[in-house]
Amino acid sequence: MNRPIHGGNLAWAASLAGCSPQAILDFSASINPLGPPIGVLTALREQVLAIRAYPDPTYGELRGVLAAQHQLSPDWVLPGNGAAELLTWIGRDLAAQSVTYVLTPAFADYGRSLRTFGATLYTEPLGVTPDAIAATLPPALATAPPTAALLLNNPHNPTGKLLHRDQILPCLDRFALVVVDEAFMDFLPPEQQQSLSDRVPVFPNLVVLRSLTKFYSLPGLRLGYAIAHPDRLRRWQAWRDPWCVNQLAVIAALAALPDRDFQAQTWAWLPPARSHLLTGLAQSPHFQPYVSAANFILVHSQRPVLPLQAHLLQHAQILIRDCLSFPELGDRYFRLAVRTPAENQRLLAAIAAWD
Amino acid sequence: MNRPIHGGNLAWAASLAGCSPQAILDFSASINPLGPPIGVLTALREQVLAIRAYPDPTYGELRGVLAAQHQLSPDWVLPGNGAAELLTWIGRDLAAQSVTYVLTPAFADYGRSLRTFGATLYTEPLGVTPDAIAATLPPALATAPPTAALLLNNPHNPTGKLLHRDQILPCLDRFALVVVDEAFMDFLPPEQQQSLSDRVPVFPNLVVLRSLTKFYSLPGLRLGYAIAHPDRLRRWQAWRDPWCVNQLAVIAALAALPDRDFQAQTWAWLPPARSHLLTGLAQSPHFQPYVSAANFILVHSQRPVLPLQAHLLQHAQILIRDCLSFPELGDRYFRLAVRTPAENQRLLAAIAAWD
Repeated sequence: MNRPIHGGNLAWAASLAGCSPQAILDFSASINPLGPPIGVLTALREQVLAIRAYPDPTYGELRGVLAAQHQLSPDWVLPGNGAAELLTWIGRDLAAQSVTYVLTPAFADYGRSLRTFGATLYTEPLGVTPDAIAATLPPALATAPPTAALLLNNPHNPTGKLLHRDQILPCLDRFALVVVDEAFMDFLPPEQQQSLSDRVPVFPNLVVLRSLTKFYSLPGLRLGYAIAHPDRLRRWQAWRDPWCVNQLAVIAALAALPDRDFQAQTWAWLPPARSHLLTGLAQSPHFQPYVSAANFILVHSQRPVLPLQAHLLQHAQILIRDCLSFPELGDRYFRLAVRTPAENQRLLAAIAAWD
Repeated sequence: MNRPIHGGNLAWAASLAGCSPQAILDFSASINPLGPPIGVLTALREQVLAIRAYPDPTYGELRGVLAAQHQLSPDWVLPGNGAAELLTWIGRDLAAQSVTYVLTPAFADYGRSLRTFGATLYTEPLGVTPDAIAATLPPALATAPPTAALLLNNPHNPTGKLLHRDQILPCLDRFALVVVDEAFMDFLPPEQQQSLSDRVPVFPNLVVLRSLTKFYSLPGLRLGYAIAHPDRLRRWQAWRDPWCVNQLAVIAALAALPDRDFQAQTWAWLPPARSHLLTGLAQSPHFQPYVSAANFILVHSQRPVLPLQAHLLQHAQILIRDCLSFPELGDRYFRLAVRTPAENQRLLAAIAAWD
């Protein structure tokens, strides 16, 4: 099998580890290890017969619940078959601008969506070095032409860097279109989040992209949503097929979104688990882990990462994310999802045994 | 709520019937009433935790099983998030031809997919009159320019007309691209099917589109597939997002496809149930039902259909499909799914009460 360009490819990992995909301990996909919420599993088992009927193509109830999370009315929100499906149509809007600025390293699917519609791409390094990651947006953004678009990720993947919303707000006056992918924003407790969703009603050139996949552990079910001006969302709806969000994803979302306990547990789990994993990694002289606001950690390694990845698969059935799909990073970086304390400890022990 | 352009919109129907969506007896969406197979429901309940992991983006196992149905190798088959998602990318290939011939009346989503990429559309009447439906392709197809594409539906929706494959084969030499939507083909027993899937390896300009949604009663889960040259399918894969088929749809398909009993039961149920429904309808002097090879029946009514539709919703919580989304048919046609004998009888009684 070819080396995958995304994390979470358990079929590929299992073929190298010589075990079943279910036996892999997956640190490569940044999914909440506490999920899915029990209420989601119960709702899916109880309502499985809902597959007999088409989804409501207006997705009225789901849009209402998603929009209420952001104090918006439903026509400002559009659910998608994962955030990646919405990236397809975002790519079409980006391609209509003269050029799209993307900060590198960047999520590989941005390139896919921009290529699909022939967008012109301008990449600007975010500033990742073995010593540090830049804390501000690159100055080159200030000289972009007024017909340019900007595609941002906040918190940033794979660095885990969180931009303050005040850093992004000036871009809304400068760029013809600004897309902020906030796929990991909900891992921050509400008072620390830097979402721009409340700016969407003021800036018709702003699109905020969100995911339910990662926080609620639903990557197999696919669910994301876009927050943008209703005219833009209606255009996308006219382009795409009428039933692109499956009904079990709707049922899962309606069960997950009101689950305050699950949200509180996630916010309580992440900071100490992340901190412990970071500290453990920093004890090796070979590794430089970076402080992260998200549920993953980027790590610089003084030695090539592929032998470590192969070792962990073959000896511990653990999958870590090499960063070869982020070409700017090369072969000396890897990314780890933060998992439960016991799982993180198992990873640290397996790394120490190789080290 | 606006009148829907597709069948199966239970939220809309329930709002008119004054009941819950689950209480509607749905004759508007042409879904197998025997399904989903029990094995599908069991597999989904048992494997619900599979939502925690991303689908394999190569969909290797699913492609293997689907391709084996057609004695093809897996790279000739591409699963989609319902056939409608594949229509999106088919529309992009059609738009690259000088003009796309579509026979009318036609499934409304064809228009959507052609508009998405700005395809030039040439519509040619199939020949539906209150007296009969033409049994052959329109002669105008023979004079199409060699740069034209053809988008066909076999069996045809909404007429239920089955074209013999020998009628379509000459089009493969004449058109630059031929798409045959066989969404309802598997409702015919194997010896009566007229699929062109075996012609795909010979004609790189042929795309066959299939659905699992209707035969296996999975419209809420979404699953279709295209059969076409691997180069074409690789191009679509590069355009669309990596995980567009959800993992529960994969699990459902793997459980459904080997279920020979379910297939045999469906083929045993349909002909007598369809014949009984047709005979019952023909007893009214107002209705002209057309012989159908599929699991639905088109009916001409001497009186406008909307009052009948409203009556059935309000008095019997039954939803029938008006044909307003097929503009060529106007307001005197409706389409009925064939359901179980008891349900068909309930419909006939409700119609008789209005009649």
